[in-house]
Formats: sequence, structure tokens, C-alpha cells
Amino acid sequence: MLVGIGDDASVLRVPKDHEILVTTDFSLEGVHFRRNWHPPEWVGHRCLTRGLSDIAAMGGEPMAAFLSLAVPASLPQKWVDDFFRGFLTLAKRFHVELAGGDIAQSPGGVLADIALVGSVPKGKALLRSQARPGDLIYVTGSLGGSAATLKQLYNKPKKRLWPADFAGHFFPEPRIAGGSILREKRLATSAIDLSDGLSTDLSHICEESSAGAEIWQDAVPRARIGKPPSEVDIELALHGGEDYELLFTATRKVRVPGTIAGVRITEIGRITRGHRIVLRRPSGKAVEFEPHGWEHFRS
Amino acid sequence: MLVGIGDDASVLRVPKDHEILVTTDFSLEGVHFRRNWHPPEWVGHRCLTRGLSDIAAMGGEPMAAFLSLAVPASLPQKWVDDFFRGFLTLAKRFHVELAGGDIAQSPGGVLADIALVGSVPKGKALLRSQARPGDLIYVTGSLGGSAATLKQLYNKPKKRLWPADFAGHFFPEPRIAGGSILREKRLATSAIDLSDGLSTDLSHICEESSAGAEIWQDAVPRARIGKPPSEVDIELALHGGEDYELLFTATRKVRVPGTIAGVRITEIGRITRGHRIVLRRPSGKAVEFEPHGWEHFRS
Repeated sequence: MLVGIGDDASVLRVPKDHEILVTTDFSLEGVHFRRNWHPPEWVGHRCLTRGLSDIAAMGGEPMAAFLSLAVPASLPQKWVDDFFRGFLTLAKRFHVELAGGDIAQSPGGVLADIALVGSVPKGKALLRSQARPGDLIYVTGSLGGSAATLKQLYNKPKKRLWPADFAGHFFPEPRIAGGSILREKRLATSAIDLSDGLSTDLSHICEESSAGAEIWQDAVPRARIGKPPSEVDIELALHGGEDYELLFTATRKVRVPGTIAGVRITEIGRITRGHRIVLRRPSGKAVEFEPHGWEHFRS
Repeated sequence: MLVGIGDDASVLRVPKDHEILVTTDFSLEGVHFRRNWHPPEWVGHRCLTRGLSDIAAMGGEPMAAFLSLAVPASLPQKWVDDFFRGFLTLAKRFHVELAGGDIAQSPGGVLADIALVGSVPKGKALLRSQARPGDLIYVTGSLGGSAATLKQLYNKPKKRLWPADFAGHFFPEPRIAGGSILREKRLATSAIDLSDGLSTDLSHICEESSAGAEIWQDAVPRARIGKPPSEVDIELALHGGEDYELLFTATRKVRVPGTIAGVRITEIGRITRGHRIVLRRPSGKAVEFEPHGWEHFRS
């Protein structure tokens, strides 16, 4: 960054022969988080994670973040300080500069909007639209951990959860290194980040690629959460959002390693002709795999 | 733009030998606008204007906009449609693509956050920090029109104002062409857009440039508003915000034209040594020119 906070706009130098990537994401109190469930560090961490995860899914490197934060007048300054600590700790780890933004007074709850700018070598971004029939479908890490944690919070709002035992929900790890490797080694034909849940995000890949898909339920890696850790319900792994893992496709000819950047890779299905997306149950029966979406909690 | 809405991030190609400019701006109901005073087209127009004006003040060209919009569940769809009409009409005029964004449900009022991405030839951005003692200070257009309109709305909330008679407030014109010419012809040493008001924005230039300034009150061009048009109070021209004109400085050697891109240019003072910012009253008396800031209206 050449010029940052303190001028009308920030000036960013783009690496030679690179294009830029831009993504924006809202984090709204009562929709994406609750102040009584989620520590302020988490809200700051999550806010940046959403942007980083989008850049990861394009195979890009993050450069700079812009944060617009609206908070109620009654909010303690400590909350804001802790929010920034969570945000900036993650930013530092990924060499992302907080290059601009705004703090304003909110008429309702806390509201954060992030714009994240990254870069990617020209013409090399991983898109949603390039999956082809016959490609295999993979995910990084395991799924459902974030939704299962939210469900526990929702069912027992008074119970105190230790963030360390539920790291997938409280401190998800954006897959920047994994996305870069998929791009550099030309392993993936398409990619998306799992923010809305497997069923919804897979439907985006299929729609953009004009293809169908088949997912093998038995193959879907379920997260283990809590203490002692236990495997999450399969429905949460299939539909729950906010895991920030990557879903990607690769041709059958490509040898996809078992781990990428230290994260397990699992083959979970294949891209098919047509537009149907089906889920192969353990019994062998194929059912429609409808996007259930990610039902954000409401107060 | 190469890839837009419908992927994890937008991919933007940067013109050769250019840097990118990024700015973000909040528009909050009750803080920056009121739904009973401001038509939705205006809110959309204003939202984009703030970003365009920042790019103009850097001497840049806008490329793409990203809009995050949170609206209460009760808001009529027509309001949102009209908001987008105002936003997109202005975007089209400046060849800005709406390249991404989000619509979410707001717990409070309407809340829009815009991220605007532009470009500028490498090393040529107009900064706030390059004003030097002896430089003359100029403004585009006239000042105080927006604040004077707000004052009328505030004093007589029931009175209907015709936006066409108060265009400076309702449909301010970002000075993109003017900013580009200042950069291309190397006319300006520094620039800032007048969003917070002359006294506040001048103090930013002085602070960033480690300099003082003297403003000649008689020279400050006052807006004419209403029907029949009448000149606004000088205090509003000195301190009122949201005119989205440019304030810039130029060395004495440069011949600054009387109009740039069809907009009148007025010499209003000079940059001085030290850190004092003074206002020369018509009587000849010099007083401290303190940044009164721009007091947003509250409900």
C-alpha cells in the first residue's frame, strides 16, 4: 500500500501481470452474530475471515482490507477494542493491511461491512463456472462444525461454550494457502468457498458451470466438535454454512493430494451432465440434493 | 471488469502502469439522510457520489462499485427499486459497473456502504500531503448549498422542497472530470473533496502537509439555492459539508484557469508556514478558522 488512512482514497500498487480481486461482506448483529454468544474478537475475526475466504476461493492473495463499522452509542469502547484485536490479529497473519474505513453510530445493532482487495496472476483466477461433467468434487477440511456449534448455542443459550473446543465456529481458518496451491499447480477447474453450506454453494458451481452433480453422502467429511469431540449430524455437514472450507472440482486426470497446505482433502462426488444435483444416500438411493440455504439465526 | 456478481470475488483488470484507488463510505439513515426528507433516488445517488468524489479528489477514474445495503424488513420494495435507480443512473454516467455487493435485513434503519475502486497513473495521485507554503488555495463550484438546504429541512420539516431548486444538496455532481484535468495538467499540488466542510477539510490538508493556511472570507464562493435563488449564509459556506466540490492547492507559478471542465474555479486563500489556520474577515481582521466539522442531523 502506498497511501492509506488519511487521504481521500487508498492507493494500492498491483503486482506485475496481476489482476485485482474485490469482495465485500456484511456482518450484522442478530443476523450473523449475537453479542451474548460471540466474543468481540470473534466478530472481528469472522468479519475478515469472510473476505479472506472469498479471495482464497479465487486462488488469490489478499492485499488490503477496508472496514466500515457502525456501533450503537451505548456500546462499551472495550467491545470495539476487542473487535479490532480479533480483526487485526488475523490481518497480520495474512499480511493484510487495514487500509481504510469508517466508524459511525448505528441506529440498531453492530454492523460491520468489509471490502477486501487481493490480486491474482492475469487470467488465472479460480472461477465457479469452469466445472465440467466428469470432474470430481473435493472439499478441504470437514463440514458442519460451525452450524452444529450455532445449534448448541441456540438450544442452550445460557450454556457457556469454550471457543477453543469449537474452533471451527469461533475461529475458522480461511484457506488462502490451499487456494493458492490449487491455482499454481493447476489442480482445480472451479472453486467456491463454503460460506452458505455445501448444498447451496454446490448449486452455485452447477448453475455457473451449467452442469449437474452427484454427492456421495458417506464421503462427506463431518466435523468433530466439543469436548470430548463428537461428530456432527450429517444434515449439518450437508447444509450448514460458515465453515469457510473450499469446495473445488478437478478433472479425473489430475492427481489431487490427500492434504494441501496441511489440510485434508476429501473427494465427495462428481460433476454430471444436465442440471440435476443428487445426493447418494448410504443405502444407494439417490435423492434430490436441494439447497437448504443457511438459515441465519434470528433474535 | 472480467468477472462480476456471481463469483466469490470480482476480477478487475487494471490499466497498464496504473495504481488502484479504493475508498469506502457509509450512508446511514438518521445520520446522513432521513427517509421522510430524502427521496430514495437521492439516497442512491448520494451513496455513489461520496465514493466518486473521493476518487475525483485523487485525480482518478472510477472503475467499479460494490454496494452493501441493509434494509428493514418493513421497507417497501419500491423504495429499494428507486434507490437502485438513483444509484445506477449516476453509475452509468460515470461508466462505473456495479460489480458486487450484498443485500441484508437491517435491525434498524436503512444502511448502505459503498466501496469504490478506481485507477490512476502510477505515482500521479493527487494527495492531501503535498501542499507547500506559498501555494494558493482554490475551490471548484460554490459552497454551503447542501448545508443550507438541510437547515431549511430541519427548520421546516413539513415544507416540501423541490429537489431541482436545491440540486447541490439533492443531486451533487462529483468532480471526476475536474480532478482528472488537475492531475493530467499537473495544476494541483494537493487536493481533497469537500465532504465535511471547508474548515474541516482544509484542516486535513494542513495537517497532512504540515502547513498553515489563510482563507479570505470575501473570496469564498457562496451557493445560491431555492426559488428564487438566494445566496447562502457565509457560515454555511465556511463550515457546511456535503457539497462534494474539490479543494486544491497550486503553486503561484501555475496558471489556474477560471473554469475547469465547465465548473468555476475560485482562489480563496493561501498555504502558510506553521500550523495556524486563519480566516481573514471582510474587515481585514484575522481570526482562528477552527474546523466546526459537519454536524450530521439527528432524529
